[in-house]
Amino acid sequence: MFRIATTLSVRAGVRPVHPRTFSTASSLLQQYRVEKDTMGELQVPADRYWGAQTQRSLQNFDIGGETERMPYPVIKAFAIVKKAAAKVNSETHLDKKIAEAIVQAADEVIAGKHKDHFPLVVWQTGSGTQTNMNVNEVLSNRAIEILGGELGSKKPVHPNDHVNNGQSSNDTFPTAMHVAAVIEIHERLIPALEKLEKALQAKVAEFKDIIKIGRTHLQDATPLTLGQEFSGYAQQVTYGIERVKSALPRLYNLAQGGTAVGTGLNTKAGFDAKVAEQIAKDTGLPFKTAPNKFEALAAHDAIVEASGALNTIAVSLNKIANDIRLLGSGPRCGLGELRLPENEPGSSIMPGKVNPTQCEAMTMVCAQVIGNHTAVTVAGAQGHFELNVFKPVLIRNLLHSVRLVADASVSFTDKCVTGIEANEARISSLLHESLMLVTALNPYIGYDNAAKAAKKAHKEGTTLKQATVSLGLLTPEEFDKYVRPEQMIGPK
Amino acid sequence: MFRIATTLSVRAGVRPVHPRTFSTASSLLQQYRVEKDTMGELQVPADRYWGAQTQRSLQNFDIGGETERMPYPVIKAFAIVKKAAAKVNSETHLDKKIAEAIVQAADEVIAGKHKDHFPLVVWQTGSGTQTNMNVNEVLSNRAIEILGGELGSKKPVHPNDHVNNGQSSNDTFPTAMHVAAVIEIHERLIPALEKLEKALQAKVAEFKDIIKIGRTHLQDATPLTLGQEFSGYAQQVTYGIERVKSALPRLYNLAQGGTAVGTGLNTKAGFDAKVAEQIAKDTGLPFKTAPNKFEALAAHDAIVEASGALNTIAVSLNKIANDIRLLGSGPRCGLGELRLPENEPGSSIMPGKVNPTQCEAMTMVCAQVIGNHTAVTVAGAQGHFELNVFKPVLIRNLLHSVRLVADASVSFTDKCVTGIEANEARISSLLHESLMLVTALNPYIGYDNAAKAAKKAHKEGTTLKQATVSLGLLTPEEFDKYVRPEQMIGPK
Amino acid sequence: MFRIATTLSVRAGVRPVHPRTFSTASSLLQQYRVEKDTMGELQVPADRYWGAQTQRSLQNFDIGGETERMPYPVIKAFAIVKKAAAKVNSETHLDKKIAEAIVQAADEVIAGKHKDHFPLVVWQTGSGTQTNMNVNEVLSNRAIEILGGELGSKKPVHPNDHVNNGQSSNDTFPTAMHVAAVIEIHERLIPALEKLEKALQAKVAEFKDIIKIGRTHLQDATPLTLGQEFSGYAQQVTYGIERVKSALPRLYNLAQGGTAVGTGLNTKAGFDAKVAEQIAKDTGLPFKTAPNKFEALAAHDAIVEASGALNTIAVSLNKIANDIRLLGSGPRCGLGELRLPENEPGSSIMPGKVNPTQCEAMTMVCAQVIGNHTAVTVAGAQGHFELNVFKPVLIRNLLHSVRLVADASVSFTDKCVTGIEANEARISSLLHESLMLVTALNPYIGYDNAAKAAKKAHKEGTTLKQATVSLGLLTPEEFDKYVRPEQMIGPK
Amino acid sequence: MFRIATTLSVRAGVRPVHPRTFSTASSLLQQYRVEKDTMGELQVPADRYWGAQTQRSLQNFDIGGETERMPYPVIKAFAIVKKAAAKVNSETHLDKKIAEAIVQAADEVIAGKHKDHFPLVVWQTGSGTQTNMNVNEVLSNRAIEILGGELGSKKPVHPNDHVNNGQSSNDTFPTAMHVAAVIEIHERLIPALEKLEKALQAKVAEFKDIIKIGRTHLQDATPLTLGQEFSGYAQQVTYGIERVKSALPRLYNLAQGGTAVGTGLNTKAGFDAKVAEQIAKDTGLPFKTAPNKFEALAAHDAIVEASGALNTIAVSLNKIANDIRLLGSGPRCGLGELRLPENEPGSSIMPGKVNPTQCEAMTMVCAQVIGNHTAVTVAGAQGHFELNVFKPVLIRNLLHSVRLVADASVSFTDKCVTGIEANEARISSLLHESLMLVTALNPYIGYDNAAKAAKKAHKEGTTLKQATVSLGLLTPEEFDKYVRPEQMIGPK
Repeated sequence: MFRIATTLSVRAGVRPVHPRTFSTASSLLQQYRVEKDTMGELQVPADRYWGAQTQRSLQNFDIGGETERMPYPVIKAFAIVKKAAAKVNSETHLDKKIAEAIVQAADEVIAGKHKDHFPLVVWQTGSGTQTNMNVNEVLSNRAIEILGGELGSKKPVHPNDHVNNGQSSNDTFPTAMHVAAVIEIHERLIPALEKLEKALQAKVAEFKDIIKIGRTHLQDATPLTLGQEFSGYAQQVTYGIERVKSALPRLYNLAQGGTAVGTGLNTKAGFDAKVAEQIAKDTGLPFKTAPNKFEALAAHDAIVEASGALNTIAVSLNKIANDIRLLGSGPRCGLGELRLPENEPGSSIMPGKVNPTQCEAMTMVCAQVIGNHTAVTVAGAQGHFELNVFKPVLIRNLLHSVRLVADASVSFTDKCVTGIEANEARISSLLHESLMLVTALNPYIGYDNAAKAAKKAHKEGTTLKQATVSLGLLTPEEFDKYVRPEQMIGPK
Repeated sequence: MFRIATTLSVRAGVRPVHPRTFSTASSLLQQYRVEKDTMGELQVPADRYWGAQTQRSLQNFDIGGETERMPYPVIKAFAIVKKAAAKVNSETHLDKKIAEAIVQAADEVIAGKHKDHFPLVVWQTGSGTQTNMNVNEVLSNRAIEILGGELGSKKPVHPNDHVNNGQSSNDTFPTAMHVAAVIEIHERLIPALEKLEKALQAKVAEFKDIIKIGRTHLQDATPLTLGQEFSGYAQQVTYGIERVKSALPRLYNLAQGGTAVGTGLNTKAGFDAKVAEQIAKDTGLPFKTAPNKFEALAAHDAIVEASGALNTIAVSLNKIANDIRLLGSGPRCGLGELRLPENEPGSSIMPGKVNPTQCEAMTMVCAQVIGNHTAVTVAGAQGHFELNVFKPVLIRNLLHSVRLVADASVSFTDKCVTGIEANEARISSLLHESLMLVTALNPYIGYDNAAKAAKKAHKEGTTLKQATVSLGLLTPEEFDKYVRPEQMIGPK
Repeated sequence: MFRIATTLSVRAGVRPVHPRTFSTASSLLQQYRVEKDTMGELQVPADRYWGAQTQRSLQNFDIGGETERMPYPVIKAFAIVKKAAAKVNSETHLDKKIAEAIVQAADEVIAGKHKDHFPLVVWQTGSGTQTNMNVNEVLSNRAIEILGGELGSKKPVHPNDHVNNGQSSNDTFPTAMHVAAVIEIHERLIPALEKLEKALQAKVAEFKDIIKIGRTHLQDATPLTLGQEFSGYAQQVTYGIERVKSALPRLYNLAQGGTAVGTGLNTKAGFDAKVAEQIAKDTGLPFKTAPNKFEALAAHDAIVEASGALNTIAVSLNKIANDIRLLGSGPRCGLGELRLPENEPGSSIMPGKVNPTQCEAMTMVCAQVIGNHTAVTVAGAQGHFELNVFKPVLIRNLLHSVRLVADASVSFTDKCVTGIEANEARISSLLHESLMLVTALNPYIGYDNAAKAAKKAHKEGTTLKQATVSLGLLTPEEFDKYVRPEQMIGPK
Repeated sequence: MFRIATTLSVRAGVRPVHPRTFSTASSLLQQYRVEKDTMGELQVPADRYWGAQTQRSLQNFDIGGETERMPYPVIKAFAIVKKAAAKVNSETHLDKKIAEAIVQAADEVIAGKHKDHFPLVVWQTGSGTQTNMNVNEVLSNRAIEILGGELGSKKPVHPNDHVNNGQSSNDTFPTAMHVAAVIEIHERLIPALEKLEKALQAKVAEFKDIIKIGRTHLQDATPLTLGQEFSGYAQQVTYGIERVKSALPRLYNLAQGGTAVGTGLNTKAGFDAKVAEQIAKDTGLPFKTAPNKFEALAAHDAIVEASGALNTIAVSLNKIANDIRLLGSGPRCGLGELRLPENEPGSSIMPGKVNPTQCEAMTMVCAQVIGNHTAVTVAGAQGHFELNVFKPVLIRNLLHSVRLVADASVSFTDKCVTGIEANEARISSLLHESLMLVTALNPYIGYDNAAKAAKKAHKEGTTLKQATVSLGLLTPEEFDKYVRPEQMIGPK
């Protein structure tokens, strides 16, 4: 059944494999087999499990190149869905042997095998039909192989009749979107944020006694501890975890069972709930069938909502990373209150120059996530009637944001936060140079004299202590007794 | 104490009132009084309660004109905060008579009086200090008036020492932001969404037996009921209400008590919790003191999160309004399945032309809300150290979105949704013209014959029934017996 | 013809004026007249020129309140368009006396009279029809008044037949959008940016000899002059002016003459070009008729493009304002290189605390403009067929951005940039404390010794000079001779 | 010099190659060489040209995975820059033989060789330093190889001293950004848009005589030709090409020669202009040296501006693709005026179902481009002082948008636009069913009678002709004579 491609030119009507996408692989010896769908026959690389509809999509959507492939978590989620459907169907009408082969094939995909068999890009039909068919074709051919059949024969496992049994792209793709999003959030995002939260909490404890100048409007203000400052960052991350969790209830609702338009035509009653239950069991996550399938196909507000949580988290992380690089600015001509870990060579001529590269990667990620959220919003707003046909772009952006925030949080934690040191000498020096400590003198020398001292120090560039003593308002000992920043860091 | 402005030119160093902002009021007979702050004296219109700092802001921030004023819900929320602080302070150290006068003045503001006394625009200092001072000045002057004192004398009620007692702009402004947002969400947004939800649910019931063609990819698909279609819209709104409620827990947390940098310097221990409790009591809403005041001043992620909920709701409403105008398109050359209420004259020469103007207002509002969310996101991401100084722009946009979505939802409900009628003849005609009903024939004439009939009908432009009968596959009676859309709108 | 409202309740079928929008004006003695359109009669306040369609819109679109009114530049532009149309029509078929009255009424509106007669909000029909009718009704009633007729009689000047002659909302509203945008850009935005550019250029000259530390990644780097640093800001503004000018060519193209769908039905051949010519003459701006009227009604990409220019300018201004507040941070614990003008009282206890409030207003404006651009983008992307029905929201946001950027630029220039002073002592001190000057020693003591000196200084916290001398590498005199920052600020 | 990795564990201090990124390649037999930088030694895969700094970045920035690599157009542009610098340097001080080897190595990269040697992701340092070093390392090692030296020896071609000679990441990365953007715009984007424009123009000609119903507010309106409708689309694309060209002048300005902070320290006078000239010569594109290097390093407004042009183009393409799928909706229950090419199997049971998949891919691309623009805007707004450190995310998004719009335009043209057919029977049927043709009868039967006929037809669901004739207003012949849509498609 395999033939050398160059000999196929005589075969009328068989379209050659798409030249651009597989340029690197197109040697003269590339072997093909013929697959067909209702529009006719097509050559498919012999060493690939995909079939005619996948091949056709490759040829029709040459947009963006290989980096634009449907994200793997979607493929994996699809395999989870197909496996669950096969199990549920085998309880009623699907041949057990076929179901088992489908389950085995799906398990291989879930385990990360066969990645090269899912070549389709995001920029395809807006229902994701072609990716659904890609999965159906790969699972069917692999199941055929498991059962000793011939690839492309559709026997004994048909991609539509068996793998896609009781399903439509219109309900499986949204189901895969939710399953992929929830898994990535649970396995990747939340652990990463918790890791960062923990690292920040460790710094809260480590820095709890280091009193420093506060800054509002970027101007010197009353003091706080460095631990207090970091506690704000930790709180932001804590809230961030709450936020993403708040979005999960609506992501747990699965569209499966809605089939073409939400009515569930061609499913057996109860199929929807059983598949959701099976997926919940297989993943250990509390998925359930969506209360309204029309909404579940026609709108993807749950994806927009989850992206909104990521957007808020990006806002938080941008603040944290930006503050940290500003506090670490210097070494001589910046604020210099923090020392950040040195991960790469600084300039050989500028010792002490540690570029805050992890902060930079993080803030770039934040900009991307904010942009992705706009893409998701625009795509989510534009569905028509029974189907939102921006599904691939929606899930691509949400998963991209999840991955970037998760990876960047881990990197930022390991390569930056954990290694942050306080430059206590600098912190103390700035604190004591500042003029706002004068507040503490009001009870002793009166407001007017305090202001006089502060203004004198400001004008002459001296310390507050020097000014106060030189005005004869206090002795140096009295000054040190009264001006105690450690009593300015909380309510009375 | 009042003087005619034109006679003041001899008074050296008193800056004339800002000419542009009050151009309409600047008659030769405008009277002024002199107020002062630490930078000197300023003329203030005699019939206004505001003082020097408000006046200075008017002169320094001539940006955008009158429509750009700080939204009134912020002013009202400020009055609620000042009232609560006065009450709590009167329990420990604030003179009861002064506290009562402040409370009375605040109650007047809460009741909507004195709106013309808050002229400052959003585009001021990023901490909102000037609006805080505007409120302090107005309440102090009004309290002075209540107590029989002289406006501008700061006696017996000082704007800083009494009205702002134990407070900083840095904690009162964020508190007012949260209070304003929560009140507007509770009093305006949620009731409006619930009203829309109810109206949509009524249509679900009304349309439950009307079977219509489904459309996916904008192409004819299998049928569903019009009630099912509307149930998707209702579900979107139901979820929208859940979404905005999900954001509330973090909005209930109040910054009050953090003062300048979050430490609570200059407050008495417990002030934070007591003020939050008082505000909760006065508003009947479950406000509580924020668990971390550093976060509460330095970041406004809770505003970004709430704006994200509005963004998702805008996405939902855009879909709903867009579908409805498409379903109502026509009257002859569109889909024509719905008849929308006619609220304004259509063209006199095109009878039946009903422009879907409420849908248009709604989708324009959605675009605005999506844009506002970007503004909020950009502003939220950019705080520095102990203070995010984008507070006014943040709350302006959130409140704008809340108001627009709420008002547009009410308008859309009353002027559009409630009056929508199904054009049953048209719906039925389209349904029966469609070719996808052929699916129902598979069990009777086989898939191949069914396809043959459908293709013939498509090619020749006839009905499916005509094609089936003319092919001799079924009698007209058999066709009518087998092709029953009402059996295609749910699982078996 | 005027009657007291309270007596009207007996008049069946006349709907009372809308209660919310005119709450402040609704005294018992409010007088009304009756106007009618094709849907029937309506009460209109007797002292207003608007007619039935305006009144109906007020009642149907109670969204957002008074601050949401259609921006006045749109009303003014409409008057310019109506005036031009009346002139052109009077050359062929419109009664000269009527035309003159319309022109006079339009001139009054252009001059800023009658602002209270345009009460409609942005959130109306997406074609802006109701604002077009508002203008038609006001101009017709005012023209009637000029000619001695009775308000509401539509004689001798009919709002549709005469004022709207040869026009449709579908072409006049887009024309008014372009005219309003171009006028605001020319009269408000470009002068404001030029003013800022000039102020920055003055600082470039003033600061040209002040050598300071450079900062990349927020870390100390090689030196430059403060003038060079400001020259980057000036260049950004120069480019910004170029950018907004680049968008003008497509804004100069006017839709007028397309009428309902772009075909120009009901216009005389040449009407389009003549009206554009007349508008160009009346405004002194190079408007011309759009080469394709279908595009001009159905898409508003030119508005999106112009908003994109504003978005880029916002990006520039955000960088400039943010840098300036960072350079002015302190006074003791920040960078402290710049002294910004003190426009409002800082804290009385923290002398020298100058909050960079103009920078804050500017960066808030930038966030808003970026958000407005998203709204414009979303609205621009969603037109259908022959008409984009997001016109009001599109022009609202563009004009808002123009106004905010213009006003904020003037305020920022006058209240901040012009008064910026260099803190030369601080700049010099930071420059000489920095270690990167070691680069200059490579030719004299070799790279390895230079690095040794730098590392020693960094470790011990001494100056580079101290380290170099203490290592016996150079004498103090030699160090001063070789290390000369002024030779590091340009190519060799 | 090559060793087996598994034997290296005894070698203290040599960090093993990063496990995740190269998981697929990590066999036990993977060979490594040791490279070093100022922080120490590192193992590098033996078959890769990169050196220690690239390797370190791989280990420090494990963010996003392989799909997140720096886009290849940036690498190619870097090679163009390095080649130009080598040439210019060889004219003054760089050894000719070394320069020639660098040029040869660069030419290989420009030709697309060595793609696997640039493994770094976008999410690295914000200056792109690591990609600059990756290029320096690869070119130096390849040049060493060309000259017969040993990889990793840095002799005779040092990555810093020779390849990076007279350069800094801070000026080369922005230069590469502009060069990459301009090349992609010229070679990919503009040709694709021109192709689409041409295809649309062909349809304008093809459809010029097909009169159809116009639609405003989605409601039936006066007629136009299908060619006129498509002319609006063509005009949008024409303007789009103008828009992207308007952004080019500021992209032609190159930062090269600014070195670390914009001063040009360590360059020879004139180096900047000569490099720009050389790049212009080598690419055939009108690059020139930036008039202000401080702006060129510290801000990337030119990227934001170009992204804004793409954003406007996305808005245009969204309208076009959306209209086309709506006009092609059906086949029976939609508008059905266009027949779109059938590229993939529709449903086997729904003949005639052609999903508008190319429109869907296009509109998804538009959503992405709009989102990318937000990311660019957020990143562009946040630079600090002498360096914007969001360079990689900025250029990634711009190039992504360019590629997607270009590829999608080609795909949309070839697979959709070119094959669009008018369904003339349907178009004619809708046109003649519509009621707005009544406008043409006003001169013959008067406005009132015309309205009467139209209302009767609307109410009774008949044609206008039927109503007119049945009212006795006209004979059928008269009706056909007077009602001629072909006279309603232009001015008189």
